[in-house]
Order: sequence, then structure tokens, then C-alpha cells
Amino acid sequence: MNCPMCQRWQQHPELRVAELEHCYLTLHHDQFFPGYCLLFTRQHYTELFHLSVDRRQGVMEEVSRVAEALFRLYRPAKINYELLGNMVPHMHWHLVPRHRDDPLWPRPIWCEPHTEVLCSAADYRSTAAAIRQSLGLENSDQEGNL
Amino acid sequence: MNCPMCQRWQQHPELRVAELEHCYLTLHHDQFFPGYCLLFTRQHYTELFHLSVDRRQGVMEEVSRVAEALFRLYRPAKINYELLGNMVPHMHWHLVPRHRDDPLWPRPIWCEPHTEVLCSAADYRSTAAAIRQSLGLENSDQEGNL
Repeated sequence: MNCPMCQRWQQHPELRVAELEHCYLTLHHDQFFPGYCLLFTRQHYTELFHLSVDRRQGVMEEVSRVAEALFRLYRPAKINYELLGNMVPHMHWHLVPRHRDDPLWPRPIWCEPHTEVLCSAADYRSTAAAIRQSLGLENSDQEGNL
Repeated sequence: MNCPMCQRWQQHPELRVAELEHCYLTLHHDQFFPGYCLLFTRQHYTELFHLSVDRRQGVMEEVSRVAEALFRLYRPAKINYELLGNMVPHMHWHLVPRHRDDPLWPRPIWCEPHTEVLCSAADYRSTAAAIRQSLGLENSDQEGNL
């Protein structure tokens, strides 16, 4: 109950994008990098090698599927995929579309501090809906669930 | 031939750790984070979603296997897994054992600059041999190949 990932999901429905088979997908509240998402496992895991082969494949297929959907929608130069977990152990992937005109390109997103870009709930919901559409999910059904 | 990943492999045999089925494993020349490795695909790929399902699974099983070997050897608090590619598109995973007493913990490795920790060729070879052993590879054979 004290897990920041689980709390984020519970407390910020406006950030929710999708419930996939193995993972939940949510927007990062800071949209300094437009389309920045967090994909986190339904169950608490920390290291990739703690997963069974089947589960690992399931999770990684979802990482890949979300990355492709973000690429299709945002047309970035590159997707950045990062699984850290130093602060929040609950396995979550930072999936970040990177553009050649973003202020930190081509350096990693963490290389210097930046002012957070926060959006209205309506804007988050609109972004989440666009990503769901790019994932090929039905927005009407998903919005009902979320 | 101009690919920095391929050049690193060719020009720095002292950094080589292993030739796996899908990827090559090499030490990062900067060992500020002890055990920091780069795992890069034998073929040039950029995004995870460019791989076939089977290839992606093969690559990710090697990511997981190397992470587990690093964990067994270094006993870190966490492994960090990062696939960026903004500067060097050839798919390479940064696999970094992170310890609670490392100077940047718990922040990402990129959060501030640090002085590189360079080692002697003998020390790199010794570290590479220890990682090979943790991977369950035969050092005598591997050294012959590498």
C-alpha cells in the first residue's frame, strides 16, 4: 500500500493509459518529454531475472508494443527504454520519445534538471486517449474501465 | 565500419567479456560504477520493435542473464537497465550494478558528471574473466576466442 507506483495508479486516474495483460501503462505526470510513459508490472517484481521466462517475454512484448505505439504517434528520433528502480523498486519502465529538437538531445533525460511540465486533467486524458488509439485499443471500452 | 559500438569491440579486446548468441558483452571503459557493461546486438538494430518476436526474446534473455550474473558477482542493491541509442544507434544495453554507497545513489548514473575511472588492460581482463565465470562460461575457451 506504500508503493509509489501503486499509489500513482490509484490516485491519478487522469494519467492512466491502459491495463495490459502483464503491465499497467500510465503517463508520467511531467510531460517535459511529450509522451513520456511509465509501464509497470501488475505484480511487484524488481529485477528482470526474477521473472519466469514466459512472464519476462510477456512484459517485454508489452514494452516493445508500447514503444512502437509511442513511435507511431510522436515520430521521435529514438525511444529511450529505462528500467532503474533505485528509488521505487516496483518494476517500471520509463518509455520516452526523444526528438532531435528536445532541449537535452542527445543526452539522457536525467543529465540535467528541468522544470516539470504539468498538464490539465483534460489534457492528460486526451494524450492517454491518443496513445490508446495508437495501441489499437478501443477508447470507449478503455475509458469505461479506467 | 563507422559504428562506435563495432569499433569499440574491434579496438578494445581487453574490454571484451563474451560472445553470446544474439549479443556481444563488453565492459564499459569507465568503471566508475564497478561492473558496468554494455551488451550490444551482433546485428545493427535500433528499436526493440524492429526485432522479430523470437529475436527480441533472445536478446532480452541475454539482458536478463547478464544482469543476473552481475548481480551474483557484485551484490548490488539494484541493476539498472538502459537502452537509449540517441548518440550511438546500434542497439546497446547499459547494464549497471548500483550500490547504496555509490556516489550518485539512488539517482540515475547520468544525473551529474563524474571523473572516469580507467583501469589497466590487466585489470579489465581480470574483471571480464570474473564476469565470464559468473555467467558460467569457460574462461580458458573464451579467452582463446577473445
